[in-house]
Amino acid sequence: MAFIVKKIIHGKEYYYLNENKRVNGKVKTKTIAYLGKVKRDAEQKAKEILGSRKKGKEINEIKGDKEWENKLEQKKVSEEVKLSREEKTDKIFSIAGTRGFFFNTASIYGGKAGFYTYGHLGKLLKTNWENLWRKNILSLDDNFYEIQSNNILPESVFIASGHVESFNDPMVECKKCHLRFRVDNFLEEHGVENTEALSIEEMNKLIKEKNLKCQKCSGELSEVLQFNMMFPVSVGIGANSKAYLGPETAQGAYLAFKEEFLATRGKLPMGLAIIDKAYRNEISPRQGFFRLREFSQAELQIFFDPDKINEHEKWREVMDKKLFIKFADSNQIEEISCSDLNKKKGVPKFYIYYASKVQDFYLKIIGIPKNKFRLRELSEKERAFYNKIHFDMEIILDTIGGFKEVGGIHYRTNHDLGAHQKVSGKDLSINIDGKKFIPHVLELSFGDDRNIFALFDVFFNVGKEGAMFKLPPKLAPVKAAVFPIVKKNNFEKIAKDIADDLKKEWNVFYDKSGSIGRRYARNDEIGTPYCITIDGDSLKNKDVTVRERDTAKQIRVKISELKNVLKELINGEIEFKKAGKLVK
Amino acid sequence: MAFIVKKIIHGKEYYYLNENKRVNGKVKTKTIAYLGKVKRDAEQKAKEILGSRKKGKEINEIKGDKEWENKLEQKKVSEEVKLSREEKTDKIFSIAGTRGFFFNTASIYGGKAGFYTYGHLGKLLKTNWENLWRKNILSLDDNFYEIQSNNILPESVFIASGHVESFNDPMVECKKCHLRFRVDNFLEEHGVENTEALSIEEMNKLIKEKNLKCQKCSGELSEVLQFNMMFPVSVGIGANSKAYLGPETAQGAYLAFKEEFLATRGKLPMGLAIIDKAYRNEISPRQGFFRLREFSQAELQIFFDPDKINEHEKWREVMDKKLFIKFADSNQIEEISCSDLNKKKGVPKFYIYYASKVQDFYLKIIGIPKNKFRLRELSEKERAFYNKIHFDMEIILDTIGGFKEVGGIHYRTNHDLGAHQKVSGKDLSINIDGKKFIPHVLELSFGDDRNIFALFDVFFNVGKEGAMFKLPPKLAPVKAAVFPIVKKNNFEKIAKDIADDLKKEWNVFYDKSGSIGRRYARNDEIGTPYCITIDGDSLKNKDVTVRERDTAKQIRVKISELKNVLKELINGEIEFKKAGKLVK
Repeated sequence: MAFIVKKIIHGKEYYYLNENKRVNGKVKTKTIAYLGKVKRDAEQKAKEILGSRKKGKEINEIKGDKEWENKLEQKKVSEEVKLSREEKTDKIFSIAGTRGFFFNTASIYGGKAGFYTYGHLGKLLKTNWENLWRKNILSLDDNFYEIQSNNILPESVFIASGHVESFNDPMVECKKCHLRFRVDNFLEEHGVENTEALSIEEMNKLIKEKNLKCQKCSGELSEVLQFNMMFPVSVGIGANSKAYLGPETAQGAYLAFKEEFLATRGKLPMGLAIIDKAYRNEISPRQGFFRLREFSQAELQIFFDPDKINEHEKWREVMDKKLFIKFADSNQIEEISCSDLNKKKGVPKFYIYYASKVQDFYLKIIGIPKNKFRLRELSEKERAFYNKIHFDMEIILDTIGGFKEVGGIHYRTNHDLGAHQKVSGKDLSINIDGKKFIPHVLELSFGDDRNIFALFDVFFNVGKEGAMFKLPPKLAPVKAAVFPIVKKNNFEKIAKDIADDLKKEWNVFYDKSGSIGRRYARNDEIGTPYCITIDGDSLKNKDVTVRERDTAKQIRVKISELKNVLKELINGEIEFKKAGKLVK
Repeated sequence: MAFIVKKIIHGKEYYYLNENKRVNGKVKTKTIAYLGKVKRDAEQKAKEILGSRKKGKEINEIKGDKEWENKLEQKKVSEEVKLSREEKTDKIFSIAGTRGFFFNTASIYGGKAGFYTYGHLGKLLKTNWENLWRKNILSLDDNFYEIQSNNILPESVFIASGHVESFNDPMVECKKCHLRFRVDNFLEEHGVENTEALSIEEMNKLIKEKNLKCQKCSGELSEVLQFNMMFPVSVGIGANSKAYLGPETAQGAYLAFKEEFLATRGKLPMGLAIIDKAYRNEISPRQGFFRLREFSQAELQIFFDPDKINEHEKWREVMDKKLFIKFADSNQIEEISCSDLNKKKGVPKFYIYYASKVQDFYLKIIGIPKNKFRLRELSEKERAFYNKIHFDMEIILDTIGGFKEVGGIHYRTNHDLGAHQKVSGKDLSINIDGKKFIPHVLELSFGDDRNIFALFDVFFNVGKEGAMFKLPPKLAPVKAAVFPIVKKNNFEKIAKDIADDLKKEWNVFYDKSGSIGRRYARNDEIGTPYCITIDGDSLKNKDVTVRERDTAKQIRVKISELKNVLKELINGEIEFKKAGKLVK
């Protein structure tokens, strides 16, 4: 029986023609053809195909737990095509949705733009990324700590921080149909560049000059209004109930500064990190997973003595390192040493030390290719007024187009603690060796979800062999897959034992169904770096085949040595070809 | 110079008389006396003390980064007293606040009841607890997965779940002063028991019968009103903007069921776990850290075939195990085998299997003493209408008084998926081997913060030697502390090297300041299970002293073997006395 399957991926519909066949008493589903994106066309096409096969019987729409398998079958045909930007985006969202990386939340209710759920593989990938962040950023000083604050914070906090007054997006309303939408995006669509730096007056002027009308009904537009992007909530039922969901995790760290400074015995620099959700009521979120209304941040607030801003105890370790920087007054990326950045550009050593460690994190730990990474200096107009020095970490993203921000390094001065002292009336200065002062803050801010999305953009590709997610092994949600080559008890027993043993260390997937080729394909697609096969020789020689995802090369490894070999491979301590006997 | 120090602990004020002295060119601060809780009395007492010392010069109030040290000095005097319930509570909040476990968020703005920040030690403790949960609850089946959903979910979700209509607390308003407060708590204060089971009519009747008036102004009270405990938020600026912060993490899992069922290849039972924040707008939160407005949950939703509710593939493993249960129709805790619970009480095997694993988690992994734990069956009146079977996990908490709920095991039937299918109009049934049905759900729900607080209540005590937090080593935020016995380069070098090496595996604290006794005390207080001292013999014999927190016994261990010995100790694989040469 043949039938049409509708699949909704990233809000778009795709139609496939599938067929069920009974093989050895079991029903197997196979995709016969891809039918395109339009239901009517798909039905027509299906009739033609079935007609030509002289079996044009029933065409029904079903949902089924075999869809996942069908997607894999489908792959072989569609993926030999060279993908455009849109196709790559669709492919990523398709794999992400069907394999459990991320998908629109509450899709059964139509979902809401800007809200995504991490499925089981996505959650593992995110946790791995966050743990690498802890291991490489949070560990930069013994006096850096992770804490957990609240998402809901009292209004006073955001009066002090300036968010109540100025955390706004510019918006216009149509005087006729009352549609409201963001002005900066709207102006960009009409050829205006660098809209972040425009004042309200300049936007009003541009709307008049270009004679812009409502994007829906062509009605007259209102003056530009400011729309506050925080989500207000009301706590309790008495007075003083006004509060907000935090639009950044940073405030939680400033509020905990005093308690933590005392608890950690009063030394500077001290760092407080928070990995948690932040919330921004975007008027019309775009860019799918890249600009969310509810998102995760990993932020580290480093409190330090401003008199020591031009020193760092480990300066010698980084002074000769080269950074990839685009300065605000230039259009090119320069390779400049930390030392020159300090001497010639006047960026202080304390700032540069952390900037170089952030670059190391991207290039050495995450493995972003050099030519896809830069630190971009923001001009005075672009950066927040309290950020005295501000470089963003940017990665080239094919799916969005060009360099995109995945985080920022912000020298926030004493703006935050100073403002909280003023509004709360509580003394937040500290006293070290007789010197009383308010510490300054250097903030290392990372958008977790943007970083996860960047991994897909950079490491996910479609080649002739199918989809391939070349994630660094440390980040891979599944570290290894174990297959018995055939469904026989003796093979399965060894394979299961190996899988169970490896599971004590890592997330490992045991898979006994489908051809070996299909099992490889399933794992290539989700980024599993190593596939382990138990074959006939394994029974005799007590060894297994280990296949490397990126090269498809194979080695044979003794079962007794497997765990250690895998550990070395995952940690990048050994070359694959040298980890066992290469299979020719 | 002597001065009064005010310390605010858990909202209460404590006064101490401190003194600065210059020793070898450095200013050292010492506490001379505890002055009580009232400022006026404290000033009077300070004058008397200083007068008798003939040095009654200046008395100032300061804040200082030495407060932490002062608390430790203070300890020796105050802690020999046997603590009452209130004193133990105060002591826990004092240690929690000053050492970085947890403290009221935004205290500089006065804070808000029901909002707490985890400091650096608290965050480590919470992470350790959550990882034990993952390792022991989430791992109960290969087909259980962790995902991450959103805190903000569309209104439709909570219309379907029933929260919009019935997630209410009963409230009254004073007709005179307009104060609003919770009725159930209010009735309990006036001698009414088991208020959870009362209907609105019964409450109105009780208020009349007992002639109750406003707790503030004695004014006439309104009829009892329902106050919805969810936090509404408005998303975007168009229609359909209504949404809520989730009052439980469970809905995120139900919404992701379809995507995850397909992504994980369509097998039951399947489990989806979420560890995340939940939010409840409590009218007047009490019980400090135990009832929060923003809190963390670890919840696992197990989707299963209702026809298989009286089976579990590992039933034989648990059938003879004894559970500690208080049934709804009894006042006693019974020890009953899983088998009898199934046969005599009719509780299905699938439910019992997980209940027994949950009990194991508390008794064997967390180490709660048997006599402090029970599973309490909720009566039909107490439990939510959709919970067909409901037992809570309860622990005796000295500070709150009696058995208190730290989690629940809820057989929610097909209530949730069924309701989402109905409201969304989307088919959520699945098809397995030709049978079409909506899976049923068994929910294992744990309140993270309540569980953390329970650890303090159960394992934190004050003895003659000072405060002692007898946390199981696996949960301890700091696994070991390393001390050079004297501040000399050769001692410090060895100690630092050992600490750095151990830090690769665990969170380890290097401490060279203060007497050894004081360093032990600091670590006992935060639950560090092992203290390692480098002394004179270490230089000669290349070994160290390891002291066990709970017994104060010491062994000597070779530096080369230290890491392995610690690993075995932390994992509970070796007895302390046998891990090295006992120091007599």
